[in-house]
Amino acid sequence: MKAEIIAVGTELLLGQIANTNAQFLSQKLAEIGVGVYFHTVVGDNTERLMQVIKQASVRSDLIIFTGGLGPTQDDLTKETVAAHIDAGLVTDPVAMERIESFFHQRGIVMTENNRKQALVFDRGQVFPNDTGMAPGMAAEHNGRTFVLLPGPPSELYPMADRYVMPYLIGLLPEQQVFHSHVLRFYGIGESALEEQLLDLIESQENPTIAPYAKEFEVTLRITARAKTVAEAEKLIEPVEREIYRRLGEFIYAKGETSLHEVLVEELKQNGKTIACAESCTGGKVASLVTSVPGSSTVMRGGIVCYTNDAKRELVDVPQAVLDTDGAVSEQTARLLAENVRQKLRATCGISVTGVAGPDPSEGKPVGLVYIGVAIDGLPTVVKELRLAGRRHAIVGRAAKFALFYALQRLKKGERI
Amino acid sequence: MKAEIIAVGTELLLGQIANTNAQFLSQKLAEIGVGVYFHTVVGDNTERLMQVIKQASVRSDLIIFTGGLGPTQDDLTKETVAAHIDAGLVTDPVAMERIESFFHQRGIVMTENNRKQALVFDRGQVFPNDTGMAPGMAAEHNGRTFVLLPGPPSELYPMADRYVMPYLIGLLPEQQVFHSHVLRFYGIGESALEEQLLDLIESQENPTIAPYAKEFEVTLRITARAKTVAEAEKLIEPVEREIYRRLGEFIYAKGETSLHEVLVEELKQNGKTIACAESCTGGKVASLVTSVPGSSTVMRGGIVCYTNDAKRELVDVPQAVLDTDGAVSEQTARLLAENVRQKLRATCGISVTGVAGPDPSEGKPVGLVYIGVAIDGLPTVVKELRLAGRRHAIVGRAAKFALFYALQRLKKGERI
Repeated sequence: MKAEIIAVGTELLLGQIANTNAQFLSQKLAEIGVGVYFHTVVGDNTERLMQVIKQASVRSDLIIFTGGLGPTQDDLTKETVAAHIDAGLVTDPVAMERIESFFHQRGIVMTENNRKQALVFDRGQVFPNDTGMAPGMAAEHNGRTFVLLPGPPSELYPMADRYVMPYLIGLLPEQQVFHSHVLRFYGIGESALEEQLLDLIESQENPTIAPYAKEFEVTLRITARAKTVAEAEKLIEPVEREIYRRLGEFIYAKGETSLHEVLVEELKQNGKTIACAESCTGGKVASLVTSVPGSSTVMRGGIVCYTNDAKRELVDVPQAVLDTDGAVSEQTARLLAENVRQKLRATCGISVTGVAGPDPSEGKPVGLVYIGVAIDGLPTVVKELRLAGRRHAIVGRAAKFALFYALQRLKKGERI
Repeated sequence: MKAEIIAVGTELLLGQIANTNAQFLSQKLAEIGVGVYFHTVVGDNTERLMQVIKQASVRSDLIIFTGGLGPTQDDLTKETVAAHIDAGLVTDPVAMERIESFFHQRGIVMTENNRKQALVFDRGQVFPNDTGMAPGMAAEHNGRTFVLLPGPPSELYPMADRYVMPYLIGLLPEQQVFHSHVLRFYGIGESALEEQLLDLIESQENPTIAPYAKEFEVTLRITARAKTVAEAEKLIEPVEREIYRRLGEFIYAKGETSLHEVLVEELKQNGKTIACAESCTGGKVASLVTSVPGSSTVMRGGIVCYTNDAKRELVDVPQAVLDTDGAVSEQTARLLAENVRQKLRATCGISVTGVAGPDPSEGKPVGLVYIGVAIDGLPTVVKELRLAGRRHAIVGRAAKFALFYALQRLKKGERI
């Protein structure tokens, strides 16, 4: 099945927003094995939109539109597609009720043009809008499927997940489910990971293995298609086992989560607490930990000891150590982690000290970072890293490494 | 002049990245008054790319391509456009030298396919790539202009700013300059700002006034077109003066910068230093300040006093204050700012304490935040805020408000 995505909205052509809807839908379609061949953005203009619709109708089997379903005169996707596919427009009673109650609850008088949002094709499928007003819809014409979805991501994303993807899977030649496992990695780059799994990535058709890199982390999605979820699980299982065998040490979680969420959860589960002393990351580690709702039960606090004075006065690193070993050293990282742990009476102390750049410091190169993890009852460990990239990347990576090492050490008490 | 933007790259159709290049270029073109009518994304496929080129050639005067200029077989934009516009490809000596020196400096052997990157059209314009290898280029054909730019934003953005936009301005019917001033606001929302300036925004054609909101800040771009920069300045001046008259208190800077950069610069210029005590922002303020290169000369350090213990033990807030006023109170904010300033011997102490949510705390509502600013020789001020949004937004806004108030107080010693 050949698909294309058409976004309708002048705000996209003015550069006010990026077409992230096309990215989102493309990922979803890739997961179910549907190839996307074109993305198009066109303005709120009937004539140009009709041009684009006609062209799509001769080259694609599945044409997904986003945007232009709202109440104003600018919103013309529905009317233009309806004209092309010879569909009438009728009021969807469920959508109408939802729109009326939206205004009623807020005590606002509904203007007449809002009724337009409840209009849907007189044939095909309606997708409820659980987070907004305008419903989505789909209809066939000359063997092509036309799908219309709202533009705001807060409406599009849940509608796609709940209603549109199941509908599209139903259109596939054979009734199939697509089932994915997501593995989250840290401490390994995307290219190194690909290299380690190249034979699996190249040889496998079902399940497929797709690595993604973002925010200094790598994620691997294993997707199987099968008649049932249980069958899909069976296809995923040996591949996942093999990936764990090769790279298990770098996998910190399965599913939709993050290093800081997993760490906070691990601490909570075990009634443990954390404290951090940060030099080069300047508060980034604390900021990540406290971004997790409910982290106040496990986060004892942090010290941003950016200067030697602060390391000495707030975290009790002796001046002699700063003179001899330096602020960026294994010994300083060790003392920062141990002392902040004791000072804040936490189960686990994390420290980060390093050179984020742009210039070297103490004659030490940009990218040299020491991370200390001190846990009650375990010997303190310090890890030396040499990170590449610019200041922003070094800080981001160092902070995540700190979370990763703390997590590993807490989870398994293992050598890190 | 009618323009369209064509992005070439299968990674876009797989949803691995969003088409932010089209957004960036659309903004740039809007600024110089060029209308963009379509965005298209097509994969790394000669036949489909040729279809898209042919279509663009009949409907647009200016066709800008991004991506597909790299060294691999997948990179075919240049070859395909050259075939369409009857251009030959020749080696650009400057680009070739740059590519060779790139490999030489890194001590890596250059593979043959890299030479392909130095090929440019045998007519038209070459745009140097100051941050990568493949140059950009432009050529005319049948009265249309074809512009080819590299895909990586780190290469495209500087190339567009330095070389492509001046070239495109030269193509406009009348020789014009487009000259902008950017005003950066804090402490006012986009809609409130628009409301205050509605008459200016609606009535003005030259200069144009365009507000943008991102990362909890609002930016206003005033753009004038004229024969010379001096003439454009003359058009901007009265509008900018009027905006300052109405909203000057919310303007923290002009030009491309950020609250934390402006604050660090202000401290540096005056030989002053800063320290912060953060409760609900959990290290975000420190993290923003230390993200500025060279901030180590002004940043004395920070304390993330997430718990009452930490507020008492690390920042000397008396237990009686925590019992009577509470952790989220004007008095606690005042003591945190004053004490962290003294403890770290800084010129300026900033504090943030509040309820980030999701749940209320001490019977105080989500979004209630106190910010303290204690400056050597000035009375301490504490500001109470009631911020809307979820945890992430409350933390982000509170951190920026802290920077904003510190900046205002440092700059003008004024009431905040």
